[in-house]
Amino acid sequence: KTHTDCLTSKTIVRLPGLIDTHVHVREPGATHKEDYDTCTAAALAGGVTMICAMPNTNPAIVDAESLLLVKKLAKEKARCDYAVFLGASSENMITASELVHDVVGMKMYLNDTFTTLKLNDLNIWAKHLANWPKKAPLCVHAEGQTTAAILFLASMQNRAVHICHVARKEEILVIKAAKEKGIKVTCEVCPHHLFFTKNDIEKIGSGKAQVRPMLVTPEDQQALWDNLQIIDCFATDHAPHTIQEKTSDHPPPGFPGLETILPLLLNAVNEGRITLDDIINKFHKNPRKIFNLPEQFNTYVEVDLDEEWTIPEATIFSKAKWTPFAGKTIKGAVHRVVLRGEVAYMEGQVLVPPGFGQDVKEWDPRKTVLNLDGRPPSSLNRP
Amino acid sequence: KTHTDCLTSKTIVRLPGLIDTHVHVREPGATHKEDYDTCTAAALAGGVTMICAMPNTNPAIVDAESLLLVKKLAKEKARCDYAVFLGASSENMITASELVHDVVGMKMYLNDTFTTLKLNDLNIWAKHLANWPKKAPLCVHAEGQTTAAILFLASMQNRAVHICHVARKEEILVIKAAKEKGIKVTCEVCPHHLFFTKNDIEKIGSGKAQVRPMLVTPEDQQALWDNLQIIDCFATDHAPHTIQEKTSDHPPPGFPGLETILPLLLNAVNEGRITLDDIINKFHKNPRKIFNLPEQFNTYVEVDLDEEWTIPEATIFSKAKWTPFAGKTIKGAVHRVVLRGEVAYMEGQVLVPPGFGQDVKEWDPRKTVLNLDGRPPSSLNRP
Ligand SMILES: [Zn+2]
Ligand SMILES: [Zn+2]
Ligand SMILES: [Zn+2]
Ligand SMILES: [Zn+2]
Ligand SMILES: [Zn+2]
Ligand SMILES: [Zn+2]
Ligand SMILES: [Zn+2]
Ligand SMILES: [Zn+2]
Repeated sequence: KTHTDCLTSKTIVRLPGLIDTHVHVREPGATHKEDYDTCTAAALAGGVTMICAMPNTNPAIVDAESLLLVKKLAKEKARCDYAVFLGASSENMITASELVHDVVGMKMYLNDTFTTLKLNDLNIWAKHLANWPKKAPLCVHAEGQTTAAILFLASMQNRAVHICHVARKEEILVIKAAKEKGIKVTCEVCPHHLFFTKNDIEKIGSGKAQVRPMLVTPEDQQALWDNLQIIDCFATDHAPHTIQEKTSDHPPPGFPGLETILPLLLNAVNEGRITLDDIINKFHKNPRKIFNLPEQFNTYVEVDLDEEWTIPEATIFSKAKWTPFAGKTIKGAVHRVVLRGEVAYMEGQVLVPPGFGQDVKEWDPRKTVLNLDGRPPSSLNRP
Repeated sequence: KTHTDCLTSKTIVRLPGLIDTHVHVREPGATHKEDYDTCTAAALAGGVTMICAMPNTNPAIVDAESLLLVKKLAKEKARCDYAVFLGASSENMITASELVHDVVGMKMYLNDTFTTLKLNDLNIWAKHLANWPKKAPLCVHAEGQTTAAILFLASMQNRAVHICHVARKEEILVIKAAKEKGIKVTCEVCPHHLFFTKNDIEKIGSGKAQVRPMLVTPEDQQALWDNLQIIDCFATDHAPHTIQEKTSDHPPPGFPGLETILPLLLNAVNEGRITLDDIINKFHKNPRKIFNLPEQFNTYVEVDLDEEWTIPEATIFSKAKWTPFAGKTIKGAVHRVVLRGEVAYMEGQVLVPPGFGQDVKEWDPRKTVLNLDGRPPSSLNRP
């Protein structure tokens, strides 16, 4: 699995293409923050070959029309592969299921965050849980007691849910207890909750540090590390905003994360806190399994475990042009990314153009409802 | 069960002594709002012969010392029988169970309301649920999604919980679904949620109308009536504040309710919306069963189903001296209340003195921890 790079004599390790199931591309509606081009370039630079795009765009992705719009934009501009989430609204409880084969899953927003899609009423939650097909992925933003509330509704219907960005001790422990009872729940954790606590807010700056869930206590953070075996996935919750927005009077919540997630995880490997297998399991195998995602053939990431570097002030590819991890010294870097046989990224350069990325749900033979060009997807396009 | 009153030729019906399991006596700490004397006088005037007192007093009832204090005050001043709730705090998860035989149950506050006892952390909820004896009653203030959250934790431990003051459609429907799944849940509803909606706020006055849960939509209210068979108990949530407080800049939430609950229910009987058996079941039998309360022998309430009257501006016995139900025309009145063989109330007069009321948990043969006077309770005091 490892070889020695002839030019530099460093230890190169090959990982499978990493899958980030929680990405806010910001397109349509806020392309000054990010778009499919820049977002997927940032993904490739971070060793991520497939992103799952969240539906809290403008317009929000809640029906066939908005889904067609985002798919058209993504198809033109994406450099890595992708799939799109459908947002649960208080109106699409019945119609959502018609789109099940065209999306990676449904996302439900159950707390206040950067979205217009918050659902307040347990009856609406229950209707979505009942009508969204049981085998289709269903993700929730559900902090604190909301984690327990959605698990109650889901468990009464014996259906699986995926809890996004688990951050607090109370959240990971209730998920742990639920798993022990055989309740169908999976969950993800983000680097900013693993590597920051609220004690870092001052250094980051109080506006820039805004994120949902907020940065947590050291006790919460420790509980995440203590229960790593409960955590199914790593995901960025890549949520870019410009530095002007983050330092304004009303800073929107969210961090860019795609360019830094893999280096941060490699650094944790070097520190002995996780293993390379944890990365492969939680950032490739489990996302594939939980979200029914296809294998990307001839796709892999070469990382240099020994390279030491410092995270720069600004992101290179993301339009955010800042990162909360700026100045952090890292041991471990992305060397090269191969996506479906093409070298997509190497040593700081993204080498595949906008349009190279494919909607993996267009590979899905069950996909019938939406078809951008009226033809079945060409088998030539498939891996 | 009915006889004709010789003097007035009206239809007198005898009901068992009614049990209000949700009463804020306000003593200790806020006796300008209410105390054991006035609260229990109001109870008797409303046909209530036993109250269960909530622990959000000052000091809050969370340990042996505060429990002894409130028991001493209650013993001196109560005119009707009573039992006291213990409050769950973020500190008494372990020690609370020592007091289980001295209290009617534990109360957990899980949302913001008029209390210092709000519990924010699922881990603390789970510890209380685990450590409070499974057969002992456990009540929760848990609105909206919090209803689902506490039901999840309770169901994972297979323990019963009682949901206070169900007000919204989402709440009653999740409780209904839980009951259908065999989950151990009981619930109560208050007259102000059955008989008011938010459309009444303007008439009541926005400060005076503050209550938690807030007055609901007509759709919520209709859901309560449509699911009356799911509702185990009627309870007042008697929560007196003075008119000065209710019309201040920061009106505290809560209504007085003891003097009006039975007349309002009798009026609903006359309107054909409920039956006398509903009153007997939900305001005597089920409270006894759910809260393990003893029978009060030779105790009954005579009501006059035909008497028509208008609820006055001010409560007669409660120190609140106002009621949101002022001006409502009622058919049905409390005629006479007999408590343990004594005529305790008749035609507007409370006839038993402070100190007549007994702590029904002192009747409990299992009670050993607390003993106010060092002797076992005299059998002469027992019914
Ligand atoms: Zn979120
Ligand atoms: Zn997100
Ligand atoms: Zn694989
Ligand atoms: Zn390299
Ligand atoms: Zn309450
Ligand atoms: Zn209350
Ligand atoms: Zn009885
Ligand atoms: Zn009379």
